[in-house]
Amino acid sequence: MSLFQRQAEWTADLLRITPGWQRVQALRPDCDDVTVATILSQAAAFAESVLGPLNTKADRQGCVLAEGRVRTPDGFAEAFKAYAEAGWLGMDRPEAIGGQALPLSLQAACAPLFERGCVALMMAAGASRAAAHLLLEAADETTASEWVPKLVSGEWAATICISEPDAGSDVGRLRTKARPVGEEWHITGSKCWISFGDHDMASRIGHCLLARTSDEPGVKGISLFLVPDTIDGRRNGVCVERIEDKMGLHGSPTCVLRFEEARGIPIGPEGRGLPQLFTMIELMRLSTGCQGLGIASAAADCAESYAAERRQGGPAHKPPVSIASHPDVRRQLLEIRTRTEILRAAVLELAVSMDLARIEPEGEQQRDLADFCGWMLPLVKNFGAETGFDVANRAIQVLGGAGYTKEWPLEQYLRDARVMSIYEGTTGMQALDLLTRRLWRDGGRGLDSFLKRARQDLADLVTLAPQDTETAGRVLDDFERLSGQMMAMQTTPDQALYLADAYLSAAWNALFVWMTARVAAGRYRADVIEEVAA
Amino acid sequence: MSLFQRQAEWTADLLRITPGWQRVQALRPDCDDVTVATILSQAAAFAESVLGPLNTKADRQGCVLAEGRVRTPDGFAEAFKAYAEAGWLGMDRPEAIGGQALPLSLQAACAPLFERGCVALMMAAGASRAAAHLLLEAADETTASEWVPKLVSGEWAATICISEPDAGSDVGRLRTKARPVGEEWHITGSKCWISFGDHDMASRIGHCLLARTSDEPGVKGISLFLVPDTIDGRRNGVCVERIEDKMGLHGSPTCVLRFEEARGIPIGPEGRGLPQLFTMIELMRLSTGCQGLGIASAAADCAESYAAERRQGGPAHKPPVSIASHPDVRRQLLEIRTRTEILRAAVLELAVSMDLARIEPEGEQQRDLADFCGWMLPLVKNFGAETGFDVANRAIQVLGGAGYTKEWPLEQYLRDARVMSIYEGTTGMQALDLLTRRLWRDGGRGLDSFLKRARQDLADLVTLAPQDTETAGRVLDDFERLSGQMMAMQTTPDQALYLADAYLSAAWNALFVWMTARVAAGRYRADVIEEVAA
Repeated sequence: MSLFQRQAEWTADLLRITPGWQRVQALRPDCDDVTVATILSQAAAFAESVLGPLNTKADRQGCVLAEGRVRTPDGFAEAFKAYAEAGWLGMDRPEAIGGQALPLSLQAACAPLFERGCVALMMAAGASRAAAHLLLEAADETTASEWVPKLVSGEWAATICISEPDAGSDVGRLRTKARPVGEEWHITGSKCWISFGDHDMASRIGHCLLARTSDEPGVKGISLFLVPDTIDGRRNGVCVERIEDKMGLHGSPTCVLRFEEARGIPIGPEGRGLPQLFTMIELMRLSTGCQGLGIASAAADCAESYAAERRQGGPAHKPPVSIASHPDVRRQLLEIRTRTEILRAAVLELAVSMDLARIEPEGEQQRDLADFCGWMLPLVKNFGAETGFDVANRAIQVLGGAGYTKEWPLEQYLRDARVMSIYEGTTGMQALDLLTRRLWRDGGRGLDSFLKRARQDLADLVTLAPQDTETAGRVLDDFERLSGQMMAMQTTPDQALYLADAYLSAAWNALFVWMTARVAAGRYRADVIEEVAA
Repeated sequence: MSLFQRQAEWTADLLRITPGWQRVQALRPDCDDVTVATILSQAAAFAESVLGPLNTKADRQGCVLAEGRVRTPDGFAEAFKAYAEAGWLGMDRPEAIGGQALPLSLQAACAPLFERGCVALMMAAGASRAAAHLLLEAADETTASEWVPKLVSGEWAATICISEPDAGSDVGRLRTKARPVGEEWHITGSKCWISFGDHDMASRIGHCLLARTSDEPGVKGISLFLVPDTIDGRRNGVCVERIEDKMGLHGSPTCVLRFEEARGIPIGPEGRGLPQLFTMIELMRLSTGCQGLGIASAAADCAESYAAERRQGGPAHKPPVSIASHPDVRRQLLEIRTRTEILRAAVLELAVSMDLARIEPEGEQQRDLADFCGWMLPLVKNFGAETGFDVANRAIQVLGGAGYTKEWPLEQYLRDARVMSIYEGTTGMQALDLLTRRLWRDGGRGLDSFLKRARQDLADLVTLAPQDTETAGRVLDDFERLSGQMMAMQTTPDQALYLADAYLSAAWNALFVWMTARVAAGRYRADVIEEVAA
């Protein structure tokens, strides 16, 4: 079986032991086990046959800016079209706009396969998907019905334009201006770090852009616009100033865009630009977790295969042994595999909960789910990113010198993964979110919801995995005490913020031990882990 | 003051508070403080003006194999010549062979400046330096007097050829054969991972090569040879099969060499090839620590400068503040700076002890110093490598998206540093060395020597830094207990080897807290650290 198909099978196994998934299936009887397995297997086949072959080539070829337009690597346009046509781009979008209306959980189950195939190309899909979501929620009906189906079909594409040279994490300082000119809005300013800010994969690109519509300082004067790159077939006032020369993700052009009196369509009410982005940002944070998981999955497989085949050491008078039999290599492989599969469990737990938060009837349970998701998002975003990088790095170590060369894909995985703890909110921003919003502002509701769910789940698992649940229980108790201390530090915010990163790590650790108990109790991948540890 | 000069000053400061250094100065009165400061300042000036300008360019240009020969990046040949002519290559070699006979401590104090300048070019200097050392110790007088002065002057160069495609960490499996042909030895086989295995920076290259002279399995049948690339101006049977396409260190050509009946000069007694390399390997392990320190120093400076200048955040109605004032950025900068300066202290502690082990009169104290150095070497090698990588990685995070681009040097530092925990013995090999040789085979003598020195030093520092010495004392006690447990695990080696990596980390932690107390007591860099922590 191919490694992609094996990943699909493991994902299905793990989804089955994710308790909320049974509830999703109860509400969505079309998502039975056979259907899920089929979808995952098709995603694996697509990722392996269409996306996978592009990954290394795109890294080497990169993107170029020629005559003002971005040329993407060979094969990207065709693969993007095929991805949309096969229905993957809109799999969790409503049927009315060309989607397949499948649960988000299934999208998040398939996404790591696509990310594993070619994470750089998936950056384009991610932006279009986020924009389709945003426009469907916030745009007027004419705009939505014009744009959303075209985005889902892949004929058109979109970007999210937030950052500016002097406004990165500090969005409130953005300076791009939108001014009314008759019936129109004209937009002028520079935007940077725009993924697929221009490309040759779609016939039209819409920029979902934040601009200032009033001089009120901070985020209040900021509104959301859709700025098409062409209007009635003619260029709107948008040009690419440059593409960044980056460490990795070479297939994904990171653009600096200049808008000069470009016509924009207002999306939603004036001054509400930033809050409108929130649901989209949630999806993108989950996506980052999937990206990291895709890279970790590929890197873990590569390290395991190499270690099984590579022969070194053992008694000098006998043939060399597989390096996987050396204790220190076994340790490395176990650490790699554990980190990867625990991340997979956490991604699925979050995605399933996001589904339930949307489909459960309104009420206390639904609010509780929303709190839980709010708590989980910075964790899955950040440690998805970190695990992708960390597992790629550990895998390089297993291969030794070979891992450092471009004959193996690991060094690219490391370079591609490095940006993931920077974009969609840096580690520092995730730590700030967890501490100041989830814990302080929400009065600990997210924490309570997390602890309640974790403990309830552990109680259900105790007979199956007594030792792991006990360990997890103790870690959760410690984490609750720590959280009480952090809660009390609201009066000394400067000290508390200094500790925010450590608190984020502690929260991930609490989630990690919970998921460890789940995986252990489910005997998930027990065969492989036992073999490695033997 | 330039950042290179500042690093030189800090190094001098730190050397002054390294207790063994005072003993070195007592034995070497020529190395007074003014002389040391002058040498360090000249090293900084050379690194900044000659080496630094090559670093980015060499990364972009890389090396090429053309018509069977390796072409190095523009400027490398001239810089290498200048480096040797200025006396840096032979600074700790005897005067009789063209060296300056300075203590190793001073070489190790200057090296991180050169590594910071251009770590890839310094790979060539490292190989020549190691070979000069090796040939002076082990070669017959004719060979040594022909080769060593030429290596020290930079006219000729050298490589160390150990690894083969199926013999990396497992040296005993190498297959390259040396067979006697009349008065000559002819060598046939393949060698890989040869840094500067060929180049255009010197008129002749000597390969210090391990080859099998008998069929005895393992390391016993292995002998050392010097294989010149030309003899009497004509090519010897050596050719470059390829150069590796690597993640980083692009300026350093990593070659696969093929030897076909190449004439070699035997160095030292037959069958003693591997043990002869040991003193050279010690020097190279210290060098890896210096490489990591050079990169960490540069990355730390880059992060601090950027954070001081970059303005983001603060109240929306006021001008943005320096990001260095945000608690989480302060935390990052403090972690970066602490890791860098503690590594600097550890490198100097080791280098000074290696000097003393050579110059103290023979006896118990000298043996004790040798045991201490044996203990310290795997720690400085491995955590020098890890700190270089880790600090570069953390520095990227401080810069955010900018750090991910090639406009800043950090992504190159990360790529260049990644190999350092692989070559000169992987992390796994260092862990094995510490546990099975230093602890088990030597009956804990290295550990005892380490603990004795650390505790004695802490006792001297207690009034100056009561809190740090107390913490360090407790960590040392814990580490001693852990070591007892690891010692007892000799009967279950498989379990012990599984824990070897964790033990290596614990040993570094013990060294880290000791050096922290030293730095704290010396008020070393207290101004900067206080400013960051304020």
